[in-house]
Amino acid sequence: MEQRSNILKYKHLGIYTQNEHVVYMREDCHVCISEGFEALTRIRVANTTDSIVASLNVINSDILLPHEIGLSDAAAKKLKVFGNETLRVSHLEPIDSLSHVRAKIYNQKLDYTAFNEIITDIVEGDYSNIHLSAFITACAGNRLDVTEISDLTKAMIASGKQLDWNRKIVVDKHCIGGLPGNRTTPIVVAIVAAYGLTMPKTSSRAITSPAGTADTMEVITNVALSSEEIEAVVEKEGGCFVWGGTAQLSPADDMLIKIEKALDIDSEGQLIASVLSKKAAAGSTHVVIDIPVGETAKVRSLATAQQLQEQLENVGNTVGLKVKVVITDGSQPVGRGIGPNLEAIDILSVLRNEERAPKDLKERALFLAGELLELSEEVEKDKGYENATQILESGKAYKKFEAICRAQGRFSRPLKASYSHEIRAGKTGELQRINNRKISKLAKLSGAPQSKSAGILLNVHLNDKIEKGQLLYTLFAESEGELNYALEYYENHDDIIAIE
Amino acid sequence: MEQRSNILKYKHLGIYTQNEHVVYMREDCHVCISEGFEALTRIRVANTTDSIVASLNVINSDILLPHEIGLSDAAAKKLKVFGNETLRVSHLEPIDSLSHVRAKIYNQKLDYTAFNEIITDIVEGDYSNIHLSAFITACAGNRLDVTEISDLTKAMIASGKQLDWNRKIVVDKHCIGGLPGNRTTPIVVAIVAAYGLTMPKTSSRAITSPAGTADTMEVITNVALSSEEIEAVVEKEGGCFVWGGTAQLSPADDMLIKIEKALDIDSEGQLIASVLSKKAAAGSTHVVIDIPVGETAKVRSLATAQQLQEQLENVGNTVGLKVKVVITDGSQPVGRGIGPNLEAIDILSVLRNEERAPKDLKERALFLAGELLELSEEVEKDKGYENATQILESGKAYKKFEAICRAQGRFSRPLKASYSHEIRAGKTGELQRINNRKISKLAKLSGAPQSKSAGILLNVHLNDKIEKGQLLYTLFAESEGELNYALEYYENHDDIIAIE
Repeated sequence: MEQRSNILKYKHLGIYTQNEHVVYMREDCHVCISEGFEALTRIRVANTTDSIVASLNVINSDILLPHEIGLSDAAAKKLKVFGNETLRVSHLEPIDSLSHVRAKIYNQKLDYTAFNEIITDIVEGDYSNIHLSAFITACAGNRLDVTEISDLTKAMIASGKQLDWNRKIVVDKHCIGGLPGNRTTPIVVAIVAAYGLTMPKTSSRAITSPAGTADTMEVITNVALSSEEIEAVVEKEGGCFVWGGTAQLSPADDMLIKIEKALDIDSEGQLIASVLSKKAAAGSTHVVIDIPVGETAKVRSLATAQQLQEQLENVGNTVGLKVKVVITDGSQPVGRGIGPNLEAIDILSVLRNEERAPKDLKERALFLAGELLELSEEVEKDKGYENATQILESGKAYKKFEAICRAQGRFSRPLKASYSHEIRAGKTGELQRINNRKISKLAKLSGAPQSKSAGILLNVHLNDKIEKGQLLYTLFAESEGELNYALEYYENHDDIIAIE
Repeated sequence: MEQRSNILKYKHLGIYTQNEHVVYMREDCHVCISEGFEALTRIRVANTTDSIVASLNVINSDILLPHEIGLSDAAAKKLKVFGNETLRVSHLEPIDSLSHVRAKIYNQKLDYTAFNEIITDIVEGDYSNIHLSAFITACAGNRLDVTEISDLTKAMIASGKQLDWNRKIVVDKHCIGGLPGNRTTPIVVAIVAAYGLTMPKTSSRAITSPAGTADTMEVITNVALSSEEIEAVVEKEGGCFVWGGTAQLSPADDMLIKIEKALDIDSEGQLIASVLSKKAAAGSTHVVIDIPVGETAKVRSLATAQQLQEQLENVGNTVGLKVKVVITDGSQPVGRGIGPNLEAIDILSVLRNEERAPKDLKERALFLAGELLELSEEVEKDKGYENATQILESGKAYKKFEAICRAQGRFSRPLKASYSHEIRAGKTGELQRINNRKISKLAKLSGAPQSKSAGILLNVHLNDKIEKGQLLYTLFAESEGELNYALEYYENHDDIIAIE
């Protein structure tokens, strides 16, 4: 029975809610009244070609008329509604996959089919943030075993595009974040591609940090490339450093990560599925994963790192990835710069073998590149580091880096910010601790990553002997307001760098 | 350092999101840009007297100007913003109690202080729906032990108003729902108050059912009374049947229940804390709790009911409530009517000792009233039912019922709906099953509880011998559209009543 009365006219309200599908209807609209719809009711909204599920927010002002209906941007995009169409709303049939989420809440094991149904509905946008949060929470706290993580990973891979490079070996690297300035990726890509391996690297923008690899590389070259452009670059140069955002690889992951961020929790199972599904979907075959461990890094204990290592390697196997996990020191930032331009300067300086190049960044990059060369079995065991060093120090890596950048459309020089402020030691002593989280926060308050040249230039490292008055670091900002904002935070936090 | 630039002008958008605090700002507003705010960022919003926490939705249309700011209705109400004020927004300091939620996700035990901090922040509106969902999920699946449930209950009691009736014994009853038509409460109140006990009953409106006790009693009398009016009624008559919504008892409970409803899960721990915190805050001392068990009731197995029984009685003890749990048959609806007016007709018919009064409703009410009389120790063990029967059959209960209604402001007669449709048996056989959930759904689709006289009048019970063509039930509606809507559901579901 067609309910003609359930037809409303679409009005663009332009409300951006991240991924959540929200539908807006007037409280005195005949549909709300006759259907008994109320706020948070989940409703099916259809146009002539498709339908979506959305949560109702009820409007009691004139931003909508009683015969009109609005959608959040994500909902309008999914339904492909732009103009003055009419939309039909109806009661929602139950979302079957939620029964699996409820089963998981009651600690039952889920299988591939269950995860696949859940992930499919999530990608459809059928889950509200309330449902997504329940799914993440029910899977956190070590409640997924290796088989479940593996099934979740497979379901996430299947939910999006999958790239195929038509090569036997495609290498990749990943770092379980948390260290400011740790921008080894572009150096590793340059070394490995110069050696002759294929490394089509897609990276993310910053989520909570002062710079993601994509933000940093954007200073030097174009990173928002189409699939065709990426293919051409990789075909020509064997490697790339591009933003992964447009690739539609493991799309469920992006939606889950936003909710995890809001909750500020890391579920190990989700973390593993997130990392490995992205790598597998990107067509990688051999992956080195770096887990820095430190008091203020993302992973805080060796035990956690070792558990992650075992699970990553096991789950990797089940999805056809050869995974090698390396556990590294995560007690302090890497390199000197924190923020897109300042990190780009570090990268170029390492690649150019400059005297002033940060040694720690160079060493980490050589170590990871060496591990990748060995994992690929193109280089003998224990010869990876040596080969990597030869490629970097001979200038081949820099040449490859420049070639990739030019293939991506430009090769630009990073600029310094206009406003700066030097932070000097208040006393003499030994540098005992650098708080990764607080120094990141400071860099973000100074404007990074939105302001590309904002951030921090570190002058000191752990265990350095410090003289009172010595330069510890310089804050950079693109406006005086942002500089002051960072300084205000600095003045209220005396434990960013501890000298004792 | 006061950030003058963070001041925006309030505009009423009238967006009702249930309890969630949402703040709306333009994407091109200087504050969003300079602060790096993006959708879902949690922000502190202040006026001159107070401040709240809200989640950002970003506007990219002209429903807001760049220097304007909007709030969801719940947020505006909490901050007491109505006119053209200016509001100040700032970065949010971390919400400390979320660390307890994270601890619970990792299966750690929480103590009273932790629950108290969580519940206080929830009542403040500092939790987004994402956080509420994580808290509920982390507590579900039997993850709270009795001590934790008890501490959660105490925290919920402390979060709102607490009534004090200045009497030694204040009785109450509660039913862990799920049975359509099970409207014993008004009858029990009338009997118990006629006996001389104090029973200041507050009830809820329907959440997912075709009628709550408050919806049904509203047909007969006024239920939305102020605290002062309630006190006057109870002082005069010893009992009342009012809507509990304005009383601000255990306010966290109302917020948690809405999210549980969206998730469609019942966490046992939350359920127990919910029921007992409401009773304790309402000043009750002796409470009978009815748990109907049935395949399509809320509680589906005897084992679950017995676990709930033990925990309710134990937790009750720790918060100073004498709790008696009775486990009853929940295999079919109670009485004949389902929907506010139809249930009100049943109630009056039992109280008036009419021939046609539904026996099952009468028996359940007498049983529960008897249990309450015994629990209060005013009546000897095993004499409760007898006393209750005497009060009901003598007409004293009806007299008390009428007196309470008049004290609440009116005593009206329930009306029948204009549109009806008879559903008759398709075959001869024995009535094997009535699906409580589906018959409720049918009553709701016919318009209940919004349309007071809509619903279902049942003509049959379990195990009845049925002749083909015999009247099973009548559907009532206030409009032809609603009647058709219910009929459409009926036509697509042949398992509402099973005859075999």
